[in-house]
Amino acid sequence: MSANQSVGFVKPELIEFTAPLLLECGKTLPSYSLMVETYGTLNASKSNAVLVCHALNASHHVAGLYEGQEKSEGWWDNMVGPGKPLDTNRFFVIGVNNLGSCFGSTGPSSINPQTGKPYGADFPFVTVQDWVNAQARLADYFGIEKFAAVMGGSLGGMQALQWSLGYPDRVGHCMVIASTPKLSAQNIAFNEVARQAIVTDPDFHGGNYYEHGVVPKRGLRLARMIGHITYLSGDDMAEKFGRTLRNGDYNYGLEVDFQVESYLRYQGDKFADYFDANTYLLITKALDYFDPARHTGGNLAKALEAAKAKFLLVSFTTDWRFAPERTREIVEALMANQRDVTYAEIDAPHGHDAFLLTDERYHNVVRGYFERIAKELA
Amino acid sequence: MSANQSVGFVKPELIEFTAPLLLECGKTLPSYSLMVETYGTLNASKSNAVLVCHALNASHHVAGLYEGQEKSEGWWDNMVGPGKPLDTNRFFVIGVNNLGSCFGSTGPSSINPQTGKPYGADFPFVTVQDWVNAQARLADYFGIEKFAAVMGGSLGGMQALQWSLGYPDRVGHCMVIASTPKLSAQNIAFNEVARQAIVTDPDFHGGNYYEHGVVPKRGLRLARMIGHITYLSGDDMAEKFGRTLRNGDYNYGLEVDFQVESYLRYQGDKFADYFDANTYLLITKALDYFDPARHTGGNLAKALEAAKAKFLLVSFTTDWRFAPERTREIVEALMANQRDVTYAEIDAPHGHDAFLLTDERYHNVVRGYFERIAKELA
Repeated sequence: MSANQSVGFVKPELIEFTAPLLLECGKTLPSYSLMVETYGTLNASKSNAVLVCHALNASHHVAGLYEGQEKSEGWWDNMVGPGKPLDTNRFFVIGVNNLGSCFGSTGPSSINPQTGKPYGADFPFVTVQDWVNAQARLADYFGIEKFAAVMGGSLGGMQALQWSLGYPDRVGHCMVIASTPKLSAQNIAFNEVARQAIVTDPDFHGGNYYEHGVVPKRGLRLARMIGHITYLSGDDMAEKFGRTLRNGDYNYGLEVDFQVESYLRYQGDKFADYFDANTYLLITKALDYFDPARHTGGNLAKALEAAKAKFLLVSFTTDWRFAPERTREIVEALMANQRDVTYAEIDAPHGHDAFLLTDERYHNVVRGYFERIAKELA
Repeated sequence: MSANQSVGFVKPELIEFTAPLLLECGKTLPSYSLMVETYGTLNASKSNAVLVCHALNASHHVAGLYEGQEKSEGWWDNMVGPGKPLDTNRFFVIGVNNLGSCFGSTGPSSINPQTGKPYGADFPFVTVQDWVNAQARLADYFGIEKFAAVMGGSLGGMQALQWSLGYPDRVGHCMVIASTPKLSAQNIAFNEVARQAIVTDPDFHGGNYYEHGVVPKRGLRLARMIGHITYLSGDDMAEKFGRTLRNGDYNYGLEVDFQVESYLRYQGDKFADYFDANTYLLITKALDYFDPARHTGGNLAKALEAAKAKFLLVSFTTDWRFAPERTREIVEALMANQRDVTYAEIDAPHGHDAFLLTDERYHNVVRGYFERIAKELA
């Protein structure tokens, strides 16, 4: 076995659930499907399973490649594979596309069996809690009583945290990376501007654009551009782009002057070509809504009392979206409950996006933590 | 004389300039008008004039009220007036709406004399340097050889700095508040998203929306929402809004959940009702373009060699748009040239907007500095 191999070619699998799912909003989803990928082998005692939860625009495709598709590496391929920090020689890894997303699981663009048309605006606003409940049924499907670990970055970290609260006996370790116990007013504000860009796009048609044969691409493009600024640190943008001009001189017009403009337009265009606008709305709302301390008068320590898992938390110094201070709030609330907590604050220049990038110190922390989990399982 | 009076009712004046103005972009504006307000009395030696330069969305209406209009205070009314930090009992203050703006001075919505239609997309992209050149002609109009001070916040501070470089013998004191020697990649990125929101609004019509009888309000609204987030500090937003819900509970839909959303929508709507979209594009480009060190290989000290004025610089600790570090770059470059520099870093919670707000320590710094200027003039 050599280090850092790819899991190779992978194939997603669509799993159908016919039991109704009661959602936090009070509505019920009568049936639904989840798109899933798995890597590694589930052991006989089914004790080596790790659930990887995705953030806003990612999916079940965590690692590996699709045959015949160039550059089709999974979004956390640097983290998951044989010999990688989450070592698929030891662990059985599940990636799942969340309800409401647009990569194969039931969502706003799926056909509503009751109408024969895409759900569109009728798809319920699912939450982190709903995702975790759906994921728990996925665990049942695989016969997994307890995950060795549930892991995620950003919104994925919120799901990991919610697992520790909603299913305290079913999570051995909870790994929360570049996340926050709740969004700040500024976080919500950025999400809201992105949503307003989408819903005021004339092609949005109140969320039912599918039947009009259009997509609110203008809005999605702006939403992504806004998001992108918040994923990078100011220093990182300065380093990458600075004030470099695309054509050497100012054009005194609306064409691209600076490289950073060109980059943002490109990122926006690319995203608008593949992402679903209703999913964007739904997922940003799920981000805004997440707040475990909401029913404990804002007392996070009290909210986290239910957790039994051991915790790894990681934050990145230049992440101004979910700054280290936010992760430290979780650390302190867990310590107030005398939980087993490991916390690493990585001095990395890449802002929020750092959780997706290859950084030796960060990966070593995760690798070391999984080695500990492996020892506990042995 | 009691302290802190208003200048009272004021009236703007439109001043026409018939000599062509050669612009930085290479084009020439054959004639133009500037909307102006003045407060106080110009002394016999015309030595007590202070020019106040405005930022993105402000105007010539710096202080005082319009008769019969409630809440019509000028944008820096807390700073300018009898007994106020910039004391109109001592100084003759000029407020001028910049070229390309939309409050009376010649701009994209003005009639192009060559076509009889609004300029629209044909209005040239004027720059900070162009504004200052136009302001210098305004000084000529008033017979002012040398300003006691040129003063501005944010983009207004850039104009003050440009005055010290373009007309070093005509500025006694240069007062640069909450500003920067040049925009960062992140600053440009936010401006670019705002511009893209406007130009991709179907009502933009390539900038010639006037003749279509529409206004790209959707885009302007988004532009303002984005801008607004960058004017406030994260802490300030947390303090003002936190996660306060408008109706006490989540609505699991696209309606307003959080107060901060309501606030942003309101600010966006209000702005879209009065501001011109082409002006927004033009002014954000002027911000992006400002970079005195552009022709000195990035060496700001070398770029500022020309300045002869004495300087007051002020920054605010929680301003993440133009952080104190950016003002310190100017301070250091001036000190490298052994210029007379006063610098105050105000520990204020209100982010970039702090320069417009009443803060005793900040106002005392400005007041004290103007007392020094008054003594020099006496």
